[in-house]
Amino acid sequence: MHFYFDFISPFGYFAALRVGDLATKHGRDCEWHAMLLGVSVLKVMGLKPLVETPLKGPYLGHDAARYARRHRLALKRPFDGPAMNPVPAARAFHWLKRHHADRYRGIAVDMLDAYWREARDLSQPEEITAIAAERGVDPGELRAAIESDEARQLLRAAVDASLSKGVFGSPFFIVDGEPFWGVDKMEQIDEWLTVGKW
Amino acid sequence: MHFYFDFISPFGYFAALRVGDLATKHGRDCEWHAMLLGVSVLKVMGLKPLVETPLKGPYLGHDAARYARRHRLALKRPFDGPAMNPVPAARAFHWLKRHHADRYRGIAVDMLDAYWREARDLSQPEEITAIAAERGVDPGELRAAIESDEARQLLRAAVDASLSKGVFGSPFFIVDGEPFWGVDKMEQIDEWLTVGKW
Repeated sequence: MHFYFDFISPFGYFAALRVGDLATKHGRDCEWHAMLLGVSVLKVMGLKPLVETPLKGPYLGHDAARYARRHRLALKRPFDGPAMNPVPAARAFHWLKRHHADRYRGIAVDMLDAYWREARDLSQPEEITAIAAERGVDPGELRAAIESDEARQLLRAAVDASLSKGVFGSPFFIVDGEPFWGVDKMEQIDEWLTVGKW
Repeated sequence: MHFYFDFISPFGYFAALRVGDLATKHGRDCEWHAMLLGVSVLKVMGLKPLVETPLKGPYLGHDAARYARRHRLALKRPFDGPAMNPVPAARAFHWLKRHHADRYRGIAVDMLDAYWREARDLSQPEEITAIAAERGVDPGELRAAIESDEARQLLRAAVDASLSKGVFGSPFFIVDGEPFWGVDKMEQIDEWLTVGKW
């Protein structure tokens, strides 16, 4: 199965905390994909950022805070604050996915934790390299990688591939070709994997 | 609790089929409200119609069809077809709610069934009056009511009230002041009503 998320999406973060267990429960491998809502929502769909959308923006902030309470997550970052530039984190993610495939998901969770629980600024490459260093990734190498043509191309290709598969939100899941959008769909994915397609 | 829906929303229809049981299970009364996505989504939020939104439109059609299969609903109306004008149905709904409060929800379900299962055109007042006549509402009286100032004002006031409460989608629920958007939230509403707020 496939899991898509944007680092700036709280619901993507919530899903990242659970998707590993969901896949394991069903004996599935799960490939993670960092995508960019700024491309899918703003450019391809022609919509405005969610937090700037009347009615829906305030609701989603309320819903995210409610989810955090329900799951006992203490988050420092406000949901209605300015979104950081997610590109350095997404580039680092895709470079790590290629070169450190054994730990890219763990580092992604660490990055998401740093962003949401500690309100650290992942648009700063030094924050990213410090986090990855905890799992044995050379900071200098990752620092150079974030600005490299390779990482740019990996991210661009990943975003294009996500769009070609119809991915438009975060989180998004594709299970045996079947698309599911939103963290609220995780119980249905569990059911889908349990009973087979309906 | 309060349930908001638009007649042209398949997910609003799906919720209408279940919300009565959900309220009864928890000993709650449930007031229904017909709203207009054309006002909330298009005018207030400044978005385009969902079915015309790239990526999201096709996904939602797929998701609605999947929901229908899962719940064994045989629907004649396609999800990607042109939406009817929901105003006559919404006006009839609000007039019935005021003048036939004992049966407005039942007639609403009948209207939704006619629209989704039988692909009948509820923009035609005669279709609406024929449906309501089955539950004892005088067709001539309802036919006149649909074009009346009273029904226009009731609908306008209901739409304004829904917006002032932050309602922007269909279905939408407000439970003890708490907003929930989407049919996928019904399990969480069940949990909310069971355990109390979290």
